[in-house]
Parts: sequence; C-alpha cells; structure tokens
Amino acid sequence: MRFVRYGEKGAEKPGVLDADGGLRDLSGVLPDLAGDVLANLPQITPEALPKVDGRPRLGVPVAGIGKFIGIGLNYSDHAAETGMEPPEHPIVFMKATSSITGPNDTVHLPRSSRHADWEVELGVVIGKPAKYVDEADALSHVAGYCVVNDVSERRFQSKLSGQWTKGKSCDTFGPIGPWLVTPDEVGDPQELSLTLDLNGERMQTGSTSKMIFTVAQIISHLSEIMSLQPGDVIATGTPPGVGMARDPRRFLTEGDEMSLEISGLGRQTQRVLQD
Amino acid sequence: MRFVRYGEKGAEKPGVLDADGGLRDLSGVLPDLAGDVLANLPQITPEALPKVDGRPRLGVPVAGIGKFIGIGLNYSDHAAETGMEPPEHPIVFMKATSSITGPNDTVHLPRSSRHADWEVELGVVIGKPAKYVDEADALSHVAGYCVVNDVSERRFQSKLSGQWTKGKSCDTFGPIGPWLVTPDEVGDPQELSLTLDLNGERMQTGSTSKMIFTVAQIISHLSEIMSLQPGDVIATGTPPGVGMARDPRRFLTEGDEMSLEISGLGRQTQRVLQD
Repeated sequence: MRFVRYGEKGAEKPGVLDADGGLRDLSGVLPDLAGDVLANLPQITPEALPKVDGRPRLGVPVAGIGKFIGIGLNYSDHAAETGMEPPEHPIVFMKATSSITGPNDTVHLPRSSRHADWEVELGVVIGKPAKYVDEADALSHVAGYCVVNDVSERRFQSKLSGQWTKGKSCDTFGPIGPWLVTPDEVGDPQELSLTLDLNGERMQTGSTSKMIFTVAQIISHLSEIMSLQPGDVIATGTPPGVGMARDPRRFLTEGDEMSLEISGLGRQTQRVLQD
Repeated sequence: MRFVRYGEKGAEKPGVLDADGGLRDLSGVLPDLAGDVLANLPQITPEALPKVDGRPRLGVPVAGIGKFIGIGLNYSDHAAETGMEPPEHPIVFMKATSSITGPNDTVHLPRSSRHADWEVELGVVIGKPAKYVDEADALSHVAGYCVVNDVSERRFQSKLSGQWTKGKSCDTFGPIGPWLVTPDEVGDPQELSLTLDLNGERMQTGSTSKMIFTVAQIISHLSEIMSLQPGDVIATGTPPGVGMARDPRRFLTEGDEMSLEISGLGRQTQRVLQD
C-alpha cells in the first residue's frame, strides 16, 4: 500500500494510491494516518474507495509525529567523503518536529543561513511501540517507509557551539513523503537506491546496502535507550554527494530546486526560498 | 498563578492552586493547559473554583509539548566544574518528548545505564509562537516557568558515538513540574535560586543570575534558527554539583531519591529504579 495525506496544510485527509497511481479518499475508513492506526494499517482495495478529483497538495504521510530522529554518518561511502571515521555506534540526533513539512512544500532558509545542504534519506515510520527490541524482531515494529530530505545548515550544525540539532531543526528542513509505503511493498529495506538532483543535476546516488547500521540495528539500538512510539520517524542517514563535501562546496540558494527519489517510495521536489 | 495538571497518567485534568496551596479544579474553565490556551492563561480567582479532594498525583503541568529543548553548559560556575570553556553561543540539544514525566514519578534507569546523573534546571514554557524575536521582546512569549530535572546518562551522552541527545532522552529522564508558574508571580527569572538534594544531602546549589545566556537571550537565539510553539519547553542549563563533576564521581542507583526546588516554583521528588 502507498498511503498519503492530501489537502491544505493542517487540514490533510488520509488517502491511498490505487494501482494506476490515482488518489483515493481513505477518510471513510480511518480518521488519520496517526497513532495506533499505524500499528495495524488496514488491508484495503483502493479501487473500492472514492476517487479524489484534481491534484491536491500532498502533506506529510504520517500525522502526530512525536520524535523525528536522525542518524548521522551512516553510509560507509558518505563517512569517507566527509573524512570522518565510521562510527562505532549509530550517531543519533534529533530534528525538531516543527521542521517537518510536506514533500513538495517550499524549503525556507533562515535569514542568516548561507550554508544549507541537502541529504536524501530513507525514512522509517514506527508502527508498534518498541522498547528493548532485538534486531531480529525490530522490523516488525515498522509501519512503513518514506523519503526524507534531512536539510542541514552546516554552519548552524557545527559553528554555533551547539549540537548538530541546531543545523537540522530549522522550519521546513524536514520534508517527508510523498508516500508511506508498507513493508510488504518495499521488500528488503537494505536494497533501495536513492538519488538527489539539484536543478536537474545529479548530486547524490546511493544504495541502502551501504548503510553502516541497518534499519533493524538502528531500531534495536534506539530502543535500548528510549522507547519508540507509533508515528516516530527515523531518518537513517545519507549517501555521498552532499554539498559540503563537493569541490568546490555548493550550498542552497534562493531558487534552487531539489528533487529526491528512493526506489519504490516515490519522488519529492522542493523549491528553495531565503527568508 | 500556579497551574497544575492532576490525576492518573494520561488522564490529567487542569487545576490551579489557591492562596493556601489547596488544589482547585480548572476543568470547567479550560479544556487543558496546552496549545493556544497557554498564550492567554486566564486571570481567575482560584477560590471560586471547586476544591479537589485528597492528594492526587501531579502530572506534567503542560500538555502537548512539541519540543523539549535543552541548553548545555549555561552556568559559568557549572562550566568551570566540568573543565569546559564557556560556550560562545547557547549549546542546544533536544530531549525526546517521550522522556517527559510527572514531577514526582519514578525515574527508571535503562538496563545498561550505570552513569545516570541529575541536573536541576529552570524550565521555560512558551506561550506565544516565537520566530525572529528580539531579546527585548522575548519574555513576552513565555507562558510560565517550572522545575525540570534534566536527567542525563553520561556514558550514553558521550561514549556511544552519538550526540548528547542519547544521554538525555531515556524514558522518564524529563520530570517537569510540579507547577507552571506565570511570569507575574515569578518576577525576574534571572534571580531564582535552585537546589537539588540526593537522599537528603545537598548536591546542587545555584542561582539563575549565573546563567551565561539569559532566558531572553536563549529564546531570541533559538527563534533565529527555528520557530517556537505554545507548549515548547526549554530547560535552561544546570548549576554546579552534578554527579560526574564530584570527587569521587557519584551516579544514580536504585533506591536513590532526588529532590529539586526552585524559589517560587515548588519542589519535585523522584525515586530511582533500575530497569
């Protein structure tokens, strides 16, 4: 299943894509894609649901996200490009939930931002609560997968005395979507290809097979430290090709367009504006 | 006003203390202490509200906390005891909102935790949305103040390859309360005394006058980077006396009792259990 939420910001309704990619109204079946609903997403026949006319805006495909967790330096080839040692344990940081925005909404650079960067990432949405979960059981706690752009302000991230969260938490720095795709449809989450284009030019190319810590290992590790709840989203790290690692370095400026895709999870596209 | 939320976990009702410290039922006046309610907390006469019988559990005095932001090394005398340089800008980290718990609830140490520590902190609750806010205007965005225990697992915080958030985000590592005290009653937030006792022995003594960055400066700085929403809580850093800075070091173990107080903001007390 490919679940979506569509409509104006703050007034999204749940939907689902049919076999032809057409949008169907799911609001007669469930109130929203949030909370306990995520633990037992219904098996439905999208074609039996009402068609949605037009091409409404797509929102974040999950509501009520309590935690937006990021994993740093999780691709062996990205760790190499930054010149940093691969970590011994997953590097964990938080993105403010107020950074979350729809997959194709505008990304706003804060007034003092001159070093914003892109990061295509596999997003994992928790379905069932997870605490002290074994690696072997970890994926049974996943509701589905999605594309995340972990937009990152490199100066805020490393030059403002703060932890990474400062560069990760600006408003609109967390586009999520377009779809929440259920695990049965995704197959092996460690065999997905990721790309990011900037103004039509390929910047990032990667495969989740290059993750240092797998999705299952990340969930298990996190669950030893804190509980995970339905609707929590984990951005699992980015492959090579970020702007700060290029020569010369390349950061986002007004008018740029980012387009991100993960195999089976769809494409998201954002325009960039400077506040 | 001293606002509270009382009752069983997940079923708290809003309340307010009367002049004698008696608990009054506020649920006939407002639905909960959350969201837009915090922007305009009502002027009421507590004595006109129904008395609440008995001594119910106190919950977190704010509901719907979207962000739980921590400020690190923000007391000049605490920075000195850790041997670290005072920061040039506020050090910002996130505590998972799933770490939040009532002021007198049990603190659970995760299974592998052997280095958990205490941190009494002034908590600031945002009332009005804040974005690009000047320092001079910053305090007008505050709904009130409260006591926070920023419980911190030092090994998780610094030895697990992660950002500080790993040591700050364990379940029950964020006791908040007992009261949400309105600014008119608090007076100058930079003239409050803080204490923390462990098993009756004084461990921390401090004054918010020793903050490197004031509450107003912190709100202004954060608002340049991300928007703040009603119900966001900022833990503004801890004075000297944490366990990791003692000689010999002292960490929390099962059966310990922490008791924290800030002038005018009340006292919170937690027992410690090992998972």
